[in-house]
Amino acid sequence: MHAVVPFAAENPKTRLAGVLEPAERERLARAMLVDVLEAIERAGATPTVLTTQPLEIETVVDLEVEVEVEGEADIPTIVDDRPLTAAVNGVLEERVVESGQEVAVVMADLALVTPDTLERLFSTDGDVVIAPGRGGGTNALVVRHPEFRVDYHGASYLDHRNRAAAIDATLETIDSFRLSTDIDEPADLVEVLLHTDGRARRVLEALGLELSISEGRVGVGRSETTGWS
Amino acid sequence: MHAVVPFAAENPKTRLAGVLEPAERERLARAMLVDVLEAIERAGATPTVLTTQPLEIETVVDLEVEVEVEGEADIPTIVDDRPLTAAVNGVLEERVVESGQEVAVVMADLALVTPDTLERLFSTDGDVVIAPGRGGGTNALVVRHPEFRVDYHGASYLDHRNRAAAIDATLETIDSFRLSTDIDEPADLVEVLLHTDGRARRVLEALGLELSISEGRVGVGRSETTGWS
Repeated sequence: MHAVVPFAAENPKTRLAGVLEPAERERLARAMLVDVLEAIERAGATPTVLTTQPLEIETVVDLEVEVEVEGEADIPTIVDDRPLTAAVNGVLEERVVESGQEVAVVMADLALVTPDTLERLFSTDGDVVIAPGRGGGTNALVVRHPEFRVDYHGASYLDHRNRAAAIDATLETIDSFRLSTDIDEPADLVEVLLHTDGRARRVLEALGLELSISEGRVGVGRSETTGWS
Repeated sequence: MHAVVPFAAENPKTRLAGVLEPAERERLARAMLVDVLEAIERAGATPTVLTTQPLEIETVVDLEVEVEVEGEADIPTIVDDRPLTAAVNGVLEERVVESGQEVAVVMADLALVTPDTLERLFSTDGDVVIAPGRGGGTNALVVRHPEFRVDYHGASYLDHRNRAAAIDATLETIDSFRLSTDIDEPADLVEVLLHTDGRARRVLEALGLELSISEGRVGVGRSETTGWS
């Protein structure tokens, strides 16, 4: 299974601006990317990064925390500065239509993803297999039908279901909390601190972020030692 | 498998106050409860409602939309006006400790739950099996160890993990989007409209709520015909 991981290299994760500075958001985004790439490899699939600008995977992990990327030199990248939908459809046309391959598309901010979860995704039969994200998104999918195209704008989960029905493609959905959780907003950082031991969590901890529990609600804050302001 | 469904009968779902009036929130809460009870029965388990005040299940579905509850008269209720943690621990003491049963605890606001999802929960081995909710909650669990007790305050997912470790209980987690999604806040209503055809969705539709998509974000709004203000 080939798994394409779209990655917006410039100014990532703007919705975390209230909690993280630009350079911190970039660190987190790259740590999540490498976590996802590693989980894909451990699930027995072959990742490709679909990036908006050239990316040296070796430098992806230029972080103050210790992170190791094994085999990083082997991960190919495709540079495509078109919007996400057009870039992913370009890959589908090349690989599914022309080469007859099955292709997975896995978002780069799925910090909770594990090899087990991805194996469940990759091994589910269906012309189209979707892991919905919260809010109607499509966080991961597998495409095995040459007429299927993505449209990530709006409620893509519904659009993708409709598209599959229109081309008579069989469709399955994957019921996974880990695949449903893309890390976009400050509240999502709670999930990183709770449910993974990967690089993304280590980056947050190195930045001084920790769980804060008040009035029974769980949030994130900076630890006092790093001067939360 | 016995499955206990805690239900706060009075003034439910206050965090939906910005979108729904009190009577509407009550309708939704009761529709979700019946959806959960039905899914439990279809998963082959026996539900009991653990309610803060006497509840006529027959009247639970006194809704303007058509809802059918088959076998509702057979669903027993336990009335316990203590806080959630104490009430659930009371059930665990009676059933797991004294009667040696395995007990599931499934929250009443898991509107997306399906029989398949619950079968996955119920059939997973482990002294304690947890389905985490977003934000560190525990949306569903199975208890088979007599020393395990719940504590729903704060990050209960972590507390429950720690408790299981402290008593040498084996612990498994269930990776389920449907079980992770409790319906608490307006954004959660999007998930009801997207991912279930149950009573909860029919109530929202009868109240005129529908998906609204703007700037690529998905939310909910009142349809014009019902006078969204």
